[in-house]
Amino acid sequence: MGGDFAPASEVAGMIECLRQCDNRFHVVLVGDETKINNELSKHNAAGLDFSIVHAPDIIDMHDSPVIAIKTKPNSSLVKGMNIHKDGSADAFVSAGNTGAVTAASTLILGRIPGVSRPTVAAIFPSESGPTLIVDAGAVSDCRPQFLFEFGVMGSIYSEYMLKKNYPRVGLLNIGEEESKGNELAKETFKYISERKGKFNFIGNIEGRDILKGNVDVVVCDGFVGNVILKFAESIPGYLKYQFKKFANTGIIPKLMIGLLRGSLKEIFRDMDYTEFGGIPLLGVNGVTIIGHGSSPPKAIRNMLFRAEETVQFKINQHIQEKLQEQQ
Amino acid sequence: MGGDFAPASEVAGMIECLRQCDNRFHVVLVGDETKINNELSKHNAAGLDFSIVHAPDIIDMHDSPVIAIKTKPNSSLVKGMNIHKDGSADAFVSAGNTGAVTAASTLILGRIPGVSRPTVAAIFPSESGPTLIVDAGAVSDCRPQFLFEFGVMGSIYSEYMLKKNYPRVGLLNIGEEESKGNELAKETFKYISERKGKFNFIGNIEGRDILKGNVDVVVCDGFVGNVILKFAESIPGYLKYQFKKFANTGIIPKLMIGLLRGSLKEIFRDMDYTEFGGIPLLGVNGVTIIGHGSSPPKAIRNMLFRAEETVQFKINQHIQEKLQEQQ
Repeated sequence: MGGDFAPASEVAGMIECLRQCDNRFHVVLVGDETKINNELSKHNAAGLDFSIVHAPDIIDMHDSPVIAIKTKPNSSLVKGMNIHKDGSADAFVSAGNTGAVTAASTLILGRIPGVSRPTVAAIFPSESGPTLIVDAGAVSDCRPQFLFEFGVMGSIYSEYMLKKNYPRVGLLNIGEEESKGNELAKETFKYISERKGKFNFIGNIEGRDILKGNVDVVVCDGFVGNVILKFAESIPGYLKYQFKKFANTGIIPKLMIGLLRGSLKEIFRDMDYTEFGGIPLLGVNGVTIIGHGSSPPKAIRNMLFRAEETVQFKINQHIQEKLQEQQ
Repeated sequence: MGGDFAPASEVAGMIECLRQCDNRFHVVLVGDETKINNELSKHNAAGLDFSIVHAPDIIDMHDSPVIAIKTKPNSSLVKGMNIHKDGSADAFVSAGNTGAVTAASTLILGRIPGVSRPTVAAIFPSESGPTLIVDAGAVSDCRPQFLFEFGVMGSIYSEYMLKKNYPRVGLLNIGEEESKGNELAKETFKYISERKGKFNFIGNIEGRDILKGNVDVVVCDGFVGNVILKFAESIPGYLKYQFKKFANTGIIPKLMIGLLRGSLKEIFRDMDYTEFGGIPLLGVNGVTIIGHGSSPPKAIRNMLFRAEETVQFKINQHIQEKLQEQQ
């Protein structure tokens, strides 16, 4: 219920999903029953494998995450997370307040043994396919150990979910040399170098290497990662503005842009977050997929598929094994 | 001599500049005399107002800045900076190693009274015109006071050089609320809020506000600023890759992209750093303009014009006055 278009997007996305996969799994809609039924009445949901759990409260974008979780036990977030916790559901999907979803997952599900801080992983397009950024906003102030663990989790996610073979993990820095960067980056470089073998560490990478595709997993603190994620998400809007400005310079430019409209959409599809759906919260004892607040039905549908894959590929088990294995 | 194409770009850019402005100022070329003369022989430089100071050594991209400055007194960087320091030149322009130029400027020219750390300011395009990012890489680990001073310097530069009226200065963060962000951001928000009146502080801004143009001066530490600068510089290359990929899907796409080639260049011109030329190092007791290592002649030409403007608009005097004025 915390998404910008809840529960309209959620209901429509679930219907699209279950139709497409022929009821391969069961979906529990957790939220205000009346509002959900109202949305359902706009679609033909006959024969689809879902149920509803009533949760009248909403944690919105302005709520303080930890306080809201404690004071709103009947929110869709807390109720839904508990359904996942008690094993009645294998995964939890939400387009709500990222901070609140992260906090609820950590508090209610707990952490995978060996994980200091769960991380939100963002997926960027690049010239060599999808690139993972860990952390994209869960942990603002980091220690080298956290970044090392982000690398372990990101590497596993990249391998299983993004099908990268022996993913290249780079430390986001402002120069390639070991001596470059702020204190955290310099200490982290050392920390990771002393733990070789946990993943394919290619050393420092720079901002320009992300879209170029010179790296598969970008390790950084959640402050830098979140800034760059939001910056990247604003690029399509800026390009649209530039194309529009150009189109308004005359008849010929207008015609050309008009002609190219469909193709431009195609070209920028890789930059469209709704294609992948949601991003995972890695390191919690469960499967949490977080969507953009303004997720349309397509994004919700894809989030459900990502949740299914995350369960199937046993991402958490791989993370736990890797963190506990001997050097 | 430190630029990737030195001294070819430097000589060609200077010639273009002096022709265009009709010898409005004098340029001193500092570098290897033989190489410079060799480049000059490729052009018609008759009647142009310039001179050459021989400096055979080169500080390249791999040199450690501080050590190189001390061990290479005959480098173009150290010799050129000393010519500026002793008053024989009003400004210094270089496409060399940014770290070395920053270090040489700080060590040789010294700082403006009231400035703790000089800052490199980067210029981003946006829907509301050029946006300044301070710091873009000079200071990786910052204190709130540094960021506050970056705001003062950036605000003045934005007002005089980028013609922004009462520039909006925002603190780059991962949420709008005062409580958001890492420790540095939270402390800086407080620090700036207690010093209202030095500039038009609009509070926290996020990564998405930069290209949108919701802010004129973005204050952040040099680590975040440099990552985002290099990321942004890689966008045109990524788009080119996407357009090429699209063009290769068939005859019609190829024709369409071919037809649009010139227009695309026009559309992405705002994202082309050579248009503005170089970026200033603010806070040193002099005028230093730093260019991209791979600056073409056009960028060199524009850097010279930026240097002239920075002198004319008395940017340093304004910074000193603002930092020393009573609250």
